Parts: sequence; C-alpha cells; structure tokens
Amino acid sequence: MNRILILLAILLVPGTTRAQTPPPQKQKPQMSERQAPPSPVVSPEVHTDHRVTFRLRGPNAKDVSVQIEGASKPLAMQKDEEGVWSATTEPLVLDYYGYAFLVDGVAMFDPSNSATKPNFLYRASELHVPATSGNSGDSASPAWEIADVPHGEVHHHFYRSKVVGDERGYFVYTPPSYDPRGKQTYPVLYLLHGYSDDASAWTAVGRANVILDNLIARGRAKPMLIVMPLGYGAPEILAPGSGVFRDPDITQRNFDRFREALLTEVIPRVEAEYLVMKDRDSRAIAGLSMGGAESLLTGLNTLNEFAWIGAFSSGGITADFDKEFPGLDVNANEHLRLVWIACGTDDHLIEINRTLRAWLASKGIHHVDIETPGAHTWMVWRRNLTEFAALLFR
Amino acid sequence: MNRILILLAILLVPGTTRAQTPPPQKQKPQMSERQAPPSPVVSPEVHTDHRVTFRLRGPNAKDVSVQIEGASKPLAMQKDEEGVWSATTEPLVLDYYGYAFLVDGVAMFDPSNSATKPNFLYRASELHVPATSGNSGDSASPAWEIADVPHGEVHHHFYRSKVVGDERGYFVYTPPSYDPRGKQTYPVLYLLHGYSDDASAWTAVGRANVILDNLIARGRAKPMLIVMPLGYGAPEILAPGSGVFRDPDITQRNFDRFREALLTEVIPRVEAEYLVMKDRDSRAIAGLSMGGAESLLTGLNTLNEFAWIGAFSSGGITADFDKEFPGLDVNANEHLRLVWIACGTDDHLIEINRTLRAWLASKGIHHVDIETPGAHTWMVWRRNLTEFAALLFR
Repeated sequence: MNRILILLAILLVPGTTRAQTPPPQKQKPQMSERQAPPSPVVSPEVHTDHRVTFRLRGPNAKDVSVQIEGASKPLAMQKDEEGVWSATTEPLVLDYYGYAFLVDGVAMFDPSNSATKPNFLYRASELHVPATSGNSGDSASPAWEIADVPHGEVHHHFYRSKVVGDERGYFVYTPPSYDPRGKQTYPVLYLLHGYSDDASAWTAVGRANVILDNLIARGRAKPMLIVMPLGYGAPEILAPGSGVFRDPDITQRNFDRFREALLTEVIPRVEAEYLVMKDRDSRAIAGLSMGGAESLLTGLNTLNEFAWIGAFSSGGITADFDKEFPGLDVNANEHLRLVWIACGTDDHLIEINRTLRAWLASKGIHHVDIETPGAHTWMVWRRNLTEFAALLFR
Repeated sequence: MNRILILLAILLVPGTTRAQTPPPQKQKPQMSERQAPPSPVVSPEVHTDHRVTFRLRGPNAKDVSVQIEGASKPLAMQKDEEGVWSATTEPLVLDYYGYAFLVDGVAMFDPSNSATKPNFLYRASELHVPATSGNSGDSASPAWEIADVPHGEVHHHFYRSKVVGDERGYFVYTPPSYDPRGKQTYPVLYLLHGYSDDASAWTAVGRANVILDNLIARGRAKPMLIVMPLGYGAPEILAPGSGVFRDPDITQRNFDRFREALLTEVIPRVEAEYLVMKDRDSRAIAGLSMGGAESLLTGLNTLNEFAWIGAFSSGGITADFDKEFPGLDVNANEHLRLVWIACGTDDHLIEINRTLRAWLASKGIHHVDIETPGAHTWMVWRRNLTEFAALLFR
C-alpha cells in the first residue's frame, strides 16, 4: 500500500507531498537547466498531522503571504536567511484546496507546484491533503479520493455553437457500467460550473467523476451520466470591465443564451450520442455560483425539461424573483421532484439564498433548504455534489 | 469572423491576447479581491506583426528574464518606473510556445496568464501566436489551429495498472466519423509523451486531436484512433535524484514495464472498448523524446504488434543498439511498413539519432530519415505528428 500511495502521490497529485524541483538534467537540458532554481524548495509540504507548510524563494520580495481557499485572510509568510519565505497552517480538513502566493501585491501560482487549477481569471495552485489511512475506498474515505473501485470515463466533446457563435466544448461522465453498444439507458445530471471556471472545472477541480465512481461503488448513487457544458452564453462577461454581473445586459444575455445553447444544442447532441433516458424525471440540472443561478433560471422556467434542480451557492441573479421566474406557482410542484438550495453560512451569497428560499416558500414551491459550514469554495461544492447526487432519480 | 476570433481568444486561448487581471469583484470576492494586483498588467501581448511582449510586475526583483520554448537563451526584461518588467520578441512563427519567467533565479508561471502547460516537473505558461487570417480551416492555416471542421472526441479512461501498481489514465481520440454503435472499425496510433509530461500532453500541449481533425477534414490523413497512455513504467523516474535516465536500473524498469503495461493492459482494454482493427498493419506506435525511445524499443522488439513506427527526437536509450534491439535484422523489413526517425537539427539529441539511423542502415532496416529545423520543442513535434500521421495506414 505504501508503494501505491507513493506512486499515487507522484502521478496523480503532483506537488503536494514531494519535492518538485527538477534534478540536474542530462537528456533534456534546454529549458530545464535554465529553470533550475538556486536550490530546491518543497512546497506545499503536507505533514502527517495535516498541517501544511508553504515555501517560496524570494530573496528580494518585501511582503509575501499565502491565500488559501476558504481562509478569511491571507497567511503571512516569514523570510529566512536564505531568502526562502515560509508559513505553516493549522491542521487542515482532508480535501483539495486552491491557493496563491501574494508577492508584493501580485497573486501568483506556487512555482514549486506543478498542479494548477484551470480558471479563466484567477491564479491558483492546488493543494491536496489526502487521507493518511490509504485509498481503500471505504466509506470513511472522502468521496473525492480516487479509490480501487470501477471507474467511469470522461469524454471531451467539441462543437461550434450557433447560439453563441464560437467553438466550445463540453464534458460527459459515463458511469462504469455504461456500454455504448448495449441497451441500458441512464438518467442525466447537467452540472454547471461557476463564473471564471472553464468546462473542465467540475472534473479537474470538483472531481465529479471520482465522486460519482465512489458513490456508485458504495451503492449511494444511481448510475447516471453527468454532462458538464461551458456555462457562458455571453463569453464577453469574462472581459475586464464588462463582466461579473455588473452589466445587466451582458448578464441577461449570458443567462439567456446559455439556456438556449443547453436546450437546443447540448441536450440534443447528448441525447443523440448517448444511451440516455429523455423524460423530465430522468433529467437533473445543478450548478455552483453562476451555475446555480443558471440551474434555477433554466430549471424553474422550463418545467417540462428537468424534474430535479440543485443550486449550490447561487449568485448572479437579481432579488426580483417575480421577474426572474415569471409565472412560477404552486402548480410547479406537480412537475418537480427536488429543488435543493444549498449555501455555506460563511458565503457572502448566503443572504440572497435565504431570500430566495423565503420567496419559494411564499409561492408554495416545495424545496430543501441546506445550510452548511463553509464559504464560497470547492470544499463546500464537492460535499454538495456528494449529497445531491445521492438523492437523484430515486 | 472577428467576433468568432475574439470569442475564441477568450474561450480557448486564455491569456494570449487579452488582459487577464480580474476586474473588481461583486459576486465572488473571497480570493479574488485579495488577489487583485496593484494595477493590471497584460502578458503576453501578441502584436499584429507576431512580436510578443511579456510583462511582469516585480518592483523588488533584481533580475528578470523570460525563457521561451526553443530560444537558445532567456530574453532579458527591463523594469520601468512602476516596477513592471517587460521584453518584446522578434516576430514569432505561428504556433504555441511554452515560456517561464526567471525571477532572481526562480522559474515561474506568468501570473497574468491563466494558460499553463501540464507537466510533472517544469513550470511553463502557454503563449499562442495565432493565424491572423482567421480560422477557416484552409490548408494555409496551421494544422494545430481549431477550424470549422467536424471534430472528434477525446476520451479519458482510468484504471488500476497491475503491472506498475498504481491508478492511472489514458486518453483516446476518436475521429469525427467514429460511431460506437456502428460497424466501421479503425486503425490505431499509440502516441507517447516525453519525460516529465503527463498523459494529457499530446492533447493539451501537442493538440493531437486538433491536428487529426484538420488532417482528416483536408483528406490528408486516414481516420484513425489515437491512444495516449501514461508513459512511465517506473514512475519513480520522476523523483528528484533518481530519475532522468541517470540510474540504469530505473531506466530499464521504466521502459520494460511501460511496454508490458501497454501490451498487456492498454491495448487489450482499447481493443475491447473500441471498434478497432487488431492486425499489425493497423497499429502504429510513435512518440517524442522518452516516448520516441519507447516507440522504438516496443515497436522494433515486438514486430508482430506494430507495422508503423515513429520516433520524434528520441532520447533515453543507450547507443548500444545491438543490446537495445537484440536479434533485429533485415528480415524485419517484411513486417515493417514505416520506420520514421525524426529530429531537429538544433536538438541536443541529434547525434544519437544520427547514430541510430546509421546503425539501422548497417542492419539493412528500411527507414526514413527526417531532419528538421528546431530544437527539443513541441513546435517540432506538432509538425512531426502532422507529417507522420499523413503517412499512416496507406
């Protein structure tokens, strides 16, 4: 088991538990010799008690700290006589964390860590605090840890969107039992990323495929497909100055065209390419942050399409819910099997989520209120997916 | 077309042509507000004449340069009065380039660019110098530029390797015409990455799927599957101090177990999962650097498995070819359809490749000698794949 863990650490979790600096090069010197730092630093280093030490060589920097996903403020780092800055955390809960160094005000990736998080706007390296008890796949191991269970497959599709006018992609998880040449059909969860993420976020960062592999192996979730499209109906929402929901026209176009692309392009493609059930009761839609808003706007306004709706830490919609969800009333309960509204209590979006839940209650819409510890983080969303997926298609 | 190009730039090539700095945040402030630099810098900036300006805010740094893939030495950067370092290149050939900043001796990702290259050991951001004439898919456009042609699919598989003793993955490209529920079968190219790469390298960096989409659309390559496994039979070759082909035992184990995992695990899985031809004439093996050596060691020593062999900038084998290829003689020509040995003339591995070709000639083994401009770079390997794939399965 130790050997497997070491190999796993090397292959699957580069940068969390071992030195990253290239050894002197014989065979491939071009870039690497010149990249070789004065002497190697190891960062991040995960200790056996789950404390983590971050290090950065920066002899001339004046101020260095590390911002860890979910922490309320950056952790100050101290410089030693060799010009290496370091800081050690308290013990961390087992999970994956994004983090960035702030070097004299500039946010940057950890240069000692090859694991970076895909994101259009923000820089974050990835820290893995793994279970020390091994990867046996037992129920005590976090659902996002790769275990020795049957694995599904992640498919990357590419197409030209006529609705948005660009080349884009979407990812599809198929469960271990999926056989494209067989007869069995499966229900589908459409799972949406947040603002600044790309279409790979739910697998690369959220580890949705690993979570589903484990839930299915433990009998906790029904085998299902997960479709993860690109969540931008108006990609210009990513451009500096025009985006982040400050421009109501771009925001509206982003939501409207996303929904149109999903309903008229992605779903028809998926239903032609895969063996899936095509009825409303076999379709779920869920997402985080911007994707939570998209799940609500698409799901609650297209009741004939989705019977299961999940919204994790939703943001980007206005509080004018009568306008956002025109015509939604108590009759919707006949169509909806689950409306699951989750938010962390330390999330800056907790209040609008509480307001939304109160509005749904005022309309008589059955829904599940979930408040969890945590802020606007992937640690919350991995747990949201783990809980939500287990409820689906029952 | 302009709109499409802008969207492409935003969605597919983050960081090459637009400002990357997050705007002030309303909806997702946690990490991002603190990450916001004092004022934004744009890096890299690609000018219309294909010169490229790199920028880095580093008011306290003493020495900053940028190492660009394929350049013989780092390009020095100069600091302005606001503490922003910059440098501008000569016009660059259209392509994707890796690059890293060297800040007081430490190699680091560009903090203004969200596009990073996956790699276990080295840090590189990605620069895209795109065709300015649009992405029409005409034959003048580089093969690695996404065009408006039918796209294949990239599948990510996960499995436990009994040979190596770890959890690992492999990627499979299926061409646009591939139908898992159909009857048509396809030939397969097994395509291997280099030392320090991961299994995603040939798609994420080498753009093998884009290249094949374009070659197939132009009628220049036969539709085929490409299988891209993890190239480490002994993953400990990545560990500091033990690797990089300096330890002959680890090197031998790396090559031997890679071959065993390929032949006894990956190929049987692929041939059970996909509609593929299973005869030697329908199987090719090729790779770059370490993967070139693996292609030769596996291909030339297992003549019943592969009729087509490509070796791009091969490295990591000894020059004792009689020992590396025991028993190889002129009779091999009956089994081999193509042995294609390529290397850039500025590559430090050019001499061993020339020696290898001379040895093959001395044995009477038919092979194709390819010397191209360039060093040990992905710009060479994208062109190698473009040329080699066009020759296969004819």
